[in-house]
Amino acid sequence: MSDDSSAAVGTVFLVGSGPGDPELLTVKARRLLDEADVVLHDKLPGPEILDTVPEEKREDVGKRAGGEWTPQEYTNRRLVELARAGNDVVRLKGGDPFVFGRGGEEMEHLASEEIPFEVVPGITSAIAGPGTAGIPVTHRDHASSVSFVTGHEDPTKEESAVDWNALAATGGTLVVLMGVGKLPDYTAALRDAGMAPDTPVALVERATWPEMRVASGTLDDIVDVRDSEGIEPPAITVIGEVAATRARVVEFLRNRTGAASTEVPEQ
Amino acid sequence: MSDDSSAAVGTVFLVGSGPGDPELLTVKARRLLDEADVVLHDKLPGPEILDTVPEEKREDVGKRAGGEWTPQEYTNRRLVELARAGNDVVRLKGGDPFVFGRGGEEMEHLASEEIPFEVVPGITSAIAGPGTAGIPVTHRDHASSVSFVTGHEDPTKEESAVDWNALAATGGTLVVLMGVGKLPDYTAALRDAGMAPDTPVALVERATWPEMRVASGTLDDIVDVRDSEGIEPPAITVIGEVAATRARVVEFLRNRTGAASTEVPEQ
Ligand SMILES: C[S@@+](CC[C@H](N)C(=O)[O-])C[C@H]1O[C@@H](n2cnc3c(N)ncnc32)[C@H](O)[C@@H]1O
Ligand SMILES: C[S@@+](CC[C@H](N)C(=O)[O-])C[C@H]1O[C@@H](n2cnc3c(N)ncnc32)[C@H](O)[C@@H]1O
Repeated sequence: MSDDSSAAVGTVFLVGSGPGDPELLTVKARRLLDEADVVLHDKLPGPEILDTVPEEKREDVGKRAGGEWTPQEYTNRRLVELARAGNDVVRLKGGDPFVFGRGGEEMEHLASEEIPFEVVPGITSAIAGPGTAGIPVTHRDHASSVSFVTGHEDPTKEESAVDWNALAATGGTLVVLMGVGKLPDYTAALRDAGMAPDTPVALVERATWPEMRVASGTLDDIVDVRDSEGIEPPAITVIGEVAATRARVVEFLRNRTGAASTEVPEQ
Repeated sequence: MSDDSSAAVGTVFLVGSGPGDPELLTVKARRLLDEADVVLHDKLPGPEILDTVPEEKREDVGKRAGGEWTPQEYTNRRLVELARAGNDVVRLKGGDPFVFGRGGEEMEHLASEEIPFEVVPGITSAIAGPGTAGIPVTHRDHASSVSFVTGHEDPTKEESAVDWNALAATGGTLVVLMGVGKLPDYTAALRDAGMAPDTPVALVERATWPEMRVASGTLDDIVDVRDSEGIEPPAITVIGEVAATRARVVEFLRNRTGAASTEVPEQ
């Protein structure tokens, strides 16, 4: 890491790490992690990937925020500071940097501070989670659209930015991120919106990590399934006909990633 | 390629190629392309990636269908035939295999024929197209959801599976694939659904290819922009506030991929 503040300004690479399996890094992400002066990250890329980066180049920005700034403000400041000191910086984000990753905010901050940057897309857990579990997010016969949505917001709040009625009305697959805790709220909202109670639902926990787990149910019983199986974040919720695909193919699916992968019995 | 039909059955790898830049292959896709006995593909992965695979391993299934089967039926048959002859087969698909890629159908066919398979997600053009153009598909302040939808269907048809009213009502970002030809139809449908005519829209053609181009406009004038710039498939249409981000950051965006990248002037 260069501390020479007269050095030419470095470049910031906003890099997606993919869902966790180091082999699902892109060739470019792998190269940039190897070449970077500093790698700024939080916990989401997961231990398997973080362990491939030498400790002396790693900075965990999840930890660094003091009382003065929010973690996001700290990250923004630190990216600019490091680039101005001449470092090429990888800002490593879980999945894709622009899928609920606040990469957009970081990009706008860099541009406003006149720091050159590149965007290096990553495999999003929203597609790879279902996919590696044997669930295609679109299907010619029963899903002409797929919507990714945050489950973080309280669907009972008046001012909620997420319109579950509209999402139900699309008729397409719904993929909920950050949706383990509020599963009871948005499944109820979708039922109220007229979605059939027997709509297939799957939960994919720690997709592509050695501890990956999958649990299946319906809009009606998935909360019970979550509780009995003890599904915890990070996990993806897939709602729609496509979620039923897994049961039809899982016997021949060979990449239930990782030796320790626990399979929850089909419902 | 093995022709010994008594050999142990091979594995089929359903592999996403990413949007076209060979460095956006995953490390795993790169390894499997190098190790496979046969690589079945169509045109979408693009010349830059296909050129990295020795010609003697490549089979272009886009070309092979005779009168007897549709291209999809031919592909399904050929995958089974090659695996039964003991080959490890990469079925290479543009972007991610499960985003409007008919990977789900191929997976179900393989399972029904008892062929072991793996799913290897790829970077979808639906996220990487906007992303490498400086457009985040979600944003904390103005996009709590993003929907991917096919533009292929005629929105004026009664039986259209795509509900543009519902999609407009989500309030989130819309990303249309296969949407160059029918741009006039679905932009009209979205205006009829009440979406503001000045909603930002961007077209990203051949994202991450050396000839990548980006054109920007609004729901009202994007058809004219498409025509004056001569935007052609393959391209991604991004509709929503996030499409305006590009103009704010593009000056510092260093990965307008490829030396020959033509930039369409901002509107
Ligand atoms: C802040 S969002 C970031 C998403 C990330 N940018 C992406 O594209 O995957 C965090 C959420 O992503 C999902 N997620 C990320 N990695 C995951 C994984 N390996 N398995 C399941 N879900 C994951 C979970 O829903 C988690 O709550
Ligand atoms: C049959 S769909 C397959 C999508 C693919 N599975 C994916 O995930 O990117 C074909 C459409 O993908 C989009 N597409 C694929 N590659 C693209 C690229 N490099 N740039 C822009 N659009 C692309 C275009 O909308 C094209 O019409």
